[in-house]
Order: sequence, then C-alpha cells, then structure tokens
Amino acid sequence: MLRTHTCGELTEKNINEAVRLCGWVDTVRDHGGLVFIDLRDRYGKTQLVYSGRITDYKSEDCVQVEGVVKGRPKGTENSKISTGKIEIAVTTIKTFSSSGPLPFEISKSTKTNEELRMTYRYLDLRNPEVQKNLFIRHRACQIIRKVLDARGFIEVETPILTKSTPEGARDYLVPSRVNRGEFFALPQSPQLFKQILMVSGFDRYFQVAKCFRDEDLRADRQPEFTQLDMEMSFLEEADLFGVIEEVLSVILKEAFGVSISTPFPRLTYKEAMSRYGSDKPDLRFGLAIEDLSALVKNSEFKVFKDVVSTDKGAILGIAVPKAEASRKDIDDLTEFSKAEGAKGLAYFKVGPAGVLDSPIAKFFDAATLQKISELFKANEGDLILIVADDRARAQKVLGALRLRVAQWKKLASTGFHLSWVTEFPLFKWNEEDKRWECEHHPFTCPHAEDWKKFRPAGELGKIRSRAYDLVLNGNEIASGSVRIHEKSVQKEIFDAIGLDEKEAASRFGFLLKAFEFGAPPHGGIALGIDRILAIFLGLESIREVIAFPKNQKAVCPMTEAPSPVNERQLKDLGIKIR
Amino acid sequence: MLRTHTCGELTEKNINEAVRLCGWVDTVRDHGGLVFIDLRDRYGKTQLVYSGRITDYKSEDCVQVEGVVKGRPKGTENSKISTGKIEIAVTTIKTFSSSGPLPFEISKSTKTNEELRMTYRYLDLRNPEVQKNLFIRHRACQIIRKVLDARGFIEVETPILTKSTPEGARDYLVPSRVNRGEFFALPQSPQLFKQILMVSGFDRYFQVAKCFRDEDLRADRQPEFTQLDMEMSFLEEADLFGVIEEVLSVILKEAFGVSISTPFPRLTYKEAMSRYGSDKPDLRFGLAIEDLSALVKNSEFKVFKDVVSTDKGAILGIAVPKAEASRKDIDDLTEFSKAEGAKGLAYFKVGPAGVLDSPIAKFFDAATLQKISELFKANEGDLILIVADDRARAQKVLGALRLRVAQWKKLASTGFHLSWVTEFPLFKWNEEDKRWECEHHPFTCPHAEDWKKFRPAGELGKIRSRAYDLVLNGNEIASGSVRIHEKSVQKEIFDAIGLDEKEAASRFGFLLKAFEFGAPPHGGIALGIDRILAIFLGLESIREVIAFPKNQKAVCPMTEAPSPVNERQLKDLGIKIR
Repeated sequence: MLRTHTCGELTEKNINEAVRLCGWVDTVRDHGGLVFIDLRDRYGKTQLVYSGRITDYKSEDCVQVEGVVKGRPKGTENSKISTGKIEIAVTTIKTFSSSGPLPFEISKSTKTNEELRMTYRYLDLRNPEVQKNLFIRHRACQIIRKVLDARGFIEVETPILTKSTPEGARDYLVPSRVNRGEFFALPQSPQLFKQILMVSGFDRYFQVAKCFRDEDLRADRQPEFTQLDMEMSFLEEADLFGVIEEVLSVILKEAFGVSISTPFPRLTYKEAMSRYGSDKPDLRFGLAIEDLSALVKNSEFKVFKDVVSTDKGAILGIAVPKAEASRKDIDDLTEFSKAEGAKGLAYFKVGPAGVLDSPIAKFFDAATLQKISELFKANEGDLILIVADDRARAQKVLGALRLRVAQWKKLASTGFHLSWVTEFPLFKWNEEDKRWECEHHPFTCPHAEDWKKFRPAGELGKIRSRAYDLVLNGNEIASGSVRIHEKSVQKEIFDAIGLDEKEAASRFGFLLKAFEFGAPPHGGIALGIDRILAIFLGLESIREVIAFPKNQKAVCPMTEAPSPVNERQLKDLGIKIR
Repeated sequence: MLRTHTCGELTEKNINEAVRLCGWVDTVRDHGGLVFIDLRDRYGKTQLVYSGRITDYKSEDCVQVEGVVKGRPKGTENSKISTGKIEIAVTTIKTFSSSGPLPFEISKSTKTNEELRMTYRYLDLRNPEVQKNLFIRHRACQIIRKVLDARGFIEVETPILTKSTPEGARDYLVPSRVNRGEFFALPQSPQLFKQILMVSGFDRYFQVAKCFRDEDLRADRQPEFTQLDMEMSFLEEADLFGVIEEVLSVILKEAFGVSISTPFPRLTYKEAMSRYGSDKPDLRFGLAIEDLSALVKNSEFKVFKDVVSTDKGAILGIAVPKAEASRKDIDDLTEFSKAEGAKGLAYFKVGPAGVLDSPIAKFFDAATLQKISELFKANEGDLILIVADDRARAQKVLGALRLRVAQWKKLASTGFHLSWVTEFPLFKWNEEDKRWECEHHPFTCPHAEDWKKFRPAGELGKIRSRAYDLVLNGNEIASGSVRIHEKSVQKEIFDAIGLDEKEAASRFGFLLKAFEFGAPPHGGIALGIDRILAIFLGLESIREVIAFPKNQKAVCPMTEAPSPVNERQLKDLGIKIR
C-alpha cells in the first residue's frame, strides 16, 4: 500500500516510528511558523506538524505524508479521538491531486441545499456523518445475511430483466432489441420467482433485492429501492415472525447497540383498528381508543343517541393524559378532526376526583359521567376526546388524532417499537369500479375458516386473510403473507376479483402451471431496507441511506440520468419517441 | 413449522420418536402389500413405510407425513445416506398438493432438452444435482462478503437505473415516463460509481453487482450477469492481488474442499504472449514456446532464413512430450495451424538420445540439431512443432496449437490454475478506423515510465498500462487496473483516442468533475461470478449457475419475457414501436 497506516490507527504505542499516511487535508492551522494539518481518511484523523506556510495545502487536497510519530506536547492532547495523543512530525508531503474551490464545506454538507448535495454527491459522501449511514447499511446487510444463512436460508438472485409483476404499480419497461416490439419489465418485487423457488423445494429463500416502481414520487419514494425478500415452505406465521424478529433484533444490537425484546407484540387487524384506528399503529405511546357507545346510548345528548341508533354508528374516544388543554388547543384538535372527516369533536376535561367538565356534560347523568371517567381511567388534568360517527370513520379520525396528540404532547419515546398486525381483510370493495379487489395481492392465502364460512355466501368483505405487516413506530416496514399453494383456491380468488382465466394465464401462467406439480404450503415477507434503516438512524428521508439516490423528479443530478439517447440506439431497439 | 424434522435429519438416535415430515414423493415401491416411499426435501431423503396401495401417491406429490421412527430391518440399511438406518412407520399422510404428469423425470433433468428444462425450470431446480449449483453459489457469495468485510471493504449498492457507461457494448435502455424522450441505461458495470466512491474516501468498496449488456448472445453470455466489483484506494497492484487471492482460495477451500497455493503466479502480458502465445494462458500444462530464431538463422533452410531476416520474423516452437505422433496426427496439427493463420508447420520427431528426425532435418548441421534438442529438453518420443512467421502471428498460432495439443494428449490436470497477467498494452491500433483505442477502458493508468518515454514520441503502441487480468485454466475471469486519478492525464488519454472534450463531458463529465476535488490513487477489478463458479463446478455453461437464465435468444422460456405490452403503457412512456 501507499501508506503504512490509516489515519485512525496511530497511538502512543507508535511513537518514534517512521510512518506513511494517505488522506485528505481536513483543516490547516498556522501556529507561528508551524503548520498543523488534520489529515482525514475513512478511519479517522491524524494531526500533522511541519514548518511551512499555511498556503502550502488546502482543504480536500489528497496527499501522501511521510514522517515520524511523536507524542503531542502536554496540554495539547485531544481525548476525543483515538489518535489524540500523537502527531506526525512531517518529513515530506506529496500531493496526489489538489482540490479546487468547494461548492460547500464538507463537514456542513447536510445543511446544504439537497440538489447541490446530490450534484456533488462525491463531496457530500466525504462527510463522515453521511458516510456513516452507508457503513451502517453495509453492516445491517452483512447481519441479515449472517443470521439468515445460519438459519438455512439461501440467497438466490432473481432476474432484473423480467416480466411485469402483479404488484399494481407502473412497471419500468426495457425494449428488447432481439425481440422487436417486445419488452422486459424491471421487477416490482421477486414475488413470483420466490414462490417458484418454493415449488422447486428451496425451502428457505432470501434476497437483498433491488425492486423498481415507476410511481409519481410524492412522499419519500425512490424509483429503485432495496428490499429484504424472503420466503419459506411448510411454515406457520409464527415461524416467519421468529426469523424476522431475530434479524431485526440482531441488527439493532450489533449495528446500533440497542436491545429490544422479542417476540414483538402481535395484534390482529381488527384489534389494531379498534384500539388505535390504524393498521400501522404507533405503539410507542398508549392513547388507546375506548368505546363509549354502550355507556351513552341512553343519554340525553342527541348527537350521540342518533349515531348509536344507526347500524354502523359508534361513540369512540381517547384520553390525553395531563393534557392541560387551552381553549385554542381544543379548537385546533376540533379543526384537525373535521379535516380528517369527523363532523365534530366532543371533549371532557377531567377535574379533581375524576369529575368531568364539558359543555355537553349536562346531557349526562352523574353515573354515566362516572362510568366514562372510569372507562378512561381518567385523572385530574386529562382530556377525553370523543368522535361520534360510523365506526370505521370514527376509528380513522381517532387514529389520526392519536398521532396528532402524541406529537403535541411529545408522547413518542425515542426508542423503537415493533409489532405485527395480522389477519388483514382478504378483499376490499372498489366503489368506483364496483368490484372486489385483493387487499394484499392475489396470492394471499385466505383464513381457512372464514373462507369456508363466508365465500359461499358471497360475504367477501368478512373474509380474513393470512397477510401480515410489521410496524415500526407507526410505519409499515414489511408486508407479507402465507400464500395460496392450491390451484383450485387460486382460481377461486381470481374469480372473486373478476380476473379472467386468459388474463391470469398471460400475467402469471407459469406460477399457476407450477402449482400443478406438487406445491408446498409457503409464505414470506418483504422488508423495506431503505425505510427501516432511515428510521433506525433517525433520518428524515430514505435518500440519506442510498449511495446515489434520485431526486423527486426521478433524476440523478450527479450523472444527469435519464438523458437523451441517439437515433441509432432507438432504431436498434425498434422504438421511437412519440 | 408444519414439520418436526427435515428429510435429512433423522438417525438411529430418533428411534421411537413420533415425527412429522414434509416433502415430495421421490419414489414409490411396493413390496408385497407394504408401500415404501422415499420422501425428499432439500435436506435429504427419508424412507416411509405403510400398508396401502402403490397408487395412493405418485412422484412429486407434496405431502405431510406423521409416523414413528423405526430402525430398518437388518440387511435393508442404506449406508449411502444419513437417514439410511431408519424409516418412518406412517400413521397418516396428508397431501398438500398432488402432481400431474411430469414433462421429464426430475433426477434426469440435466439430460433433457434445455429449452424444456428452462420452461419447467421449477421442476429442473428440484433435481438435487441442479439445486446444488445454487447452494454453492450462495456459499461462495457469503464467503466473498465475509472475507471482504473482514478486510474493511464496504458493500455499496450502485444504481441500476443510470447512465450509459463507457464499456463499449450496447446498453439496455429504460424510457423515462417523467422525463419524456429521455432514457436510463442499465449499467454494464458500476465502473464510474466505484471510482466516485474512491473520490468520496470510502477507501475499500465492493459489490456483488448485477450488470447488463445487450450483446448478441453468441458464446456463453447472458443479458444480465453478476460480477464481484471491487475498488480500493492508495493501492499498488500487489495489494489488490492479495485480496482476490484470499477471496478465491477461501471459496475453493470452504465451498469445494480444494487447497490452492498463494500468491498466484504473475506474468507480464509480454511474458504470457512470448511463452504461451496468449494473454490468458492455460497453465495447467507446460508446452511453453521456445524461440529458435538465433539457432537457425544461419541454417540452410530457406523458409526459416527468410523469416528471420525480416524485422518482425521469428521461429518459435513447442515440444509435445511423449507425443507418439502418427502421420495423420501431424497432418491434423498442420491443418489446424494453417487455419489459425500459419503458412505451415515444421516438426521434429525426437528419437533415441535426443536425435531429431524430420523431412527438414537435412537443412541443419548436427550441432544446430543438438542445440534445438537441448533448447526443448527433448526426450525420445517427443514432438517439436515449429512455426516461422511474424512473431505476433507465430505466437498466436502456437498459443492455439498449445491448447489443441493439450486436448489431444489430455495434458490439462483436473485442478484449478490461477495466474495474473499484468502490464497489458495501454492502447491498440484500430486498423479499420485508423485510430488508437484503449485496450482496457479509458480510465486505465499508464505505466509511468513508458508514459514519459513513449507518449511524447507518439509511440503509443509501446506504452504498457497498469491493467491486469486474472486467468483460470485459460479463461479470463477477472479484469482490472490501477486507474488514472489526475485530470491532466485523463485528458491526455482522451486526446490520444480522439475523444473530444464535449463527448467526454457528456459521457462521464461527473467523474472528471470529481477529479477536481482531490482524487486518491485507486484501482480495482471485476470478477465474473457466473463464469468462475461454472468453471469451479466443472459445468459447460454459466446458465447452470443462474437460477433463471435466458436462452440464446435472450428469452426466458418460463415467464416468456420479453413480451408485448399494451398501448397505454407505451403512451405513458412517450414511445411507440417503429
């Protein structure tokens, strides 16, 4: 190597050794004829000292230094860095390549305009704070592979040039030159291939897989993203949960030094909706939804009475502990609830001895007020917020209100809360097209009992599935299911969603065909690696954990991809621009 | 799990245990009312016994079995498999999914027509012999990551949706919907990104990277292939060689049980060409080329004299040990040599005491014949083959002849011989376009001395580069170089190959720009993982180590990708078919 040591390696033990270091000039300081340089590489910083001019070198010059390790004079040591007790008395410095004026200061790159950061991503990535995210990503992926390998999973590379997958989003297409007029699609996920691998008897598959979705880049999405894709045979849900719980707890332990307990809590979809008004509840805080319907159905308050008297109506509420809410706070929450679709927001302030105070308190007798107070285990200073509406809407509003309140009162802990939500509905009604759709994807296995009970009656909305999500601090970070492995069931699902045989055959005929040769029960999951790491790292955007992300216009400002191509290339491919 | 054990797990220690197994019916045999089934999964086979009809189950049904482990009766044990001392006395069998008629017998899938195998790849992959290749691939990739991680390399995912790279082959293009009329290219390699990562100070990068080339699929190529892509900073060639030697020797040791010695032999390009007539010499055997020019230049044999008298002429030969060549053998070798471009093939048979016998022997005096015999260390029975031509052509012919002879005499050992070929020429002359091209790619660093010496004089053909190849049994399996890190040198290279500034800027302006901010000396390599594994496994085609390969028409017979897409999709993308 052109160096004997890295910039993070030398300590007092090396004093008087002749060494050669390579790296970048981080800072240059002049102390009366003596020049001090902090030389930086990925491993750390080492202080250089020589007699010269401060103008000899400047920040970000890439240099090779020869010199002798010396102890720093007493009082000038830096206990914050591992090399803080030594410095290099320089004999020679050679410049590999000097730096021109920088578009931004390296150590402050994260505070720079993002488009500029992305254009000069190579400089942004010199910032140790930015580099760190990619080192952690590397560590996490190594851990994923170590844990899954030890559990007998095999990593298989599935094709990138493939066929449209049934995930529903728009595909990226690749024109075929050899087969003119035909196109490959980039995979939205390896879904069909991993099921094929189970039919092939691989038993336990995983892949750190690149996936592609040509979506409009609202929110924090990327055209290409990475998922931990998994599938296993002869499983029950708990088997798969255990594997994922090990993967994530080892990542948190080894890459972040954080211990979490396993197994993660498991809620059914129904529980999640009724207790937290969301299928991805943030469980870092309580604020669980309580049902007052039975307590208030005979009250004098007409709004409540009317709602409860309907078939779907419900009176639901949450209690905000130590709310100390002002008039304005309550107005804000009311506005927020209305924006979320509520007709209004009722409330009770909890006074001394749990006595409830509210403009609507007069409509309830003392016993009822007492019961409400008890239901919420209310204490002085709490605020009970109540929505009366169709149950589904009331849940949705309170689910949103929970998050709003948690933000307002800073209830979310800094830690990580992981939980499983299971038994998602199999189908959902598409009101626009007047037809049933799959909630997850059409390969999801129905809950056996429900399937037997409700399908013959056509009560598709009541059928639970064996689909599950993993939720981290209120974010869905993984989604999966036990799959269908019987061709007959698969056919019934297609029937239910009105997918005709021809269409099914053209889209995923090979999987249906494979099911004719002895398919095992199987199931799997896909975890969004970018998202998980961003949350674990406390970062705003997944762009921070991707080496070369695209911007919100699906452009890479550094390479300027996508870009125009020449006419000859298009001709070769048998396409032209409209 | 739906099973208590796998089919490869039970031994005598489990006798009398109640167990539950899942797997596929491998074979069914009837022994007088007792039915024997070999149940197969990825882990092995277990024998089941029950009273019933042989027609109850058939090959490839996927079933779950409950029963009790029993010792096999004496004399019926199978010592070849780990479960050979036990069998399962079945209490119940449940069919998960039964199999229809098979297109081919699973255990004989490799003997089936390849198109059929690929159409039913899921059945082909049930063959343990085929599955094994993917398990070894998984193991090799795990080892790559383990070794490189331990050496401080970080795996970074570079984009798949990117910009055309300067590798020279045709790009796969992806139309951008958001930026109409513009295209992403799928990467032919992460070349520019890995150099960018070095500029960013990542110091040591690797990636098991998907790469794409839209080539005509002659030979054994795939549209998408996987390479181990690597780059490191502040290196000299030997540093990188050491890393790769460790990676490959650990793979051979741990995945194949084969020990190889390191370091691998290192030859310069010049040595490889003069000794073996090839820049990818198969060194499993000798047959080194010797130069007779000086010995025969004063002989009476006009053909040799004329050739030697020219500037570029040379008389080169190889000695085939114990050739025992017939007239026909020699005629065949002569025809072969002519087909490779030789004007003819001279030969000497070595008789007792090293005496040379040949139709042309009479043109040489005894002392010359003696010296020739000594040069080749000839023994009785050997055959010396000689080509007189321009040195380059003679080398090429003898390089080909070496391989032909090795095949004929079965000289190639069954082992693995790995060697480095270094100091490739920097440029090559394109006779058609009358211009210099880069032998490797335009980022390859010139040999410093040669650059100083020959560039000013315009003698570009004499300039060596710091490019290197890794050769395995005569196959180039990896290629790399120390790169240019100085913008001025990079500009001079572009000048030399007639690449104007505008074109250079549009193709890789971002890398040139990056070089303005302090770039480190760096270099790297890319190893073709598919090819290496195919050779290590002794397989004919890389398709055998790829889970879902394309055929020679770049089509996946299983999924039928590529396929037509609908008009709406094309409209969305702003393209139409010509």
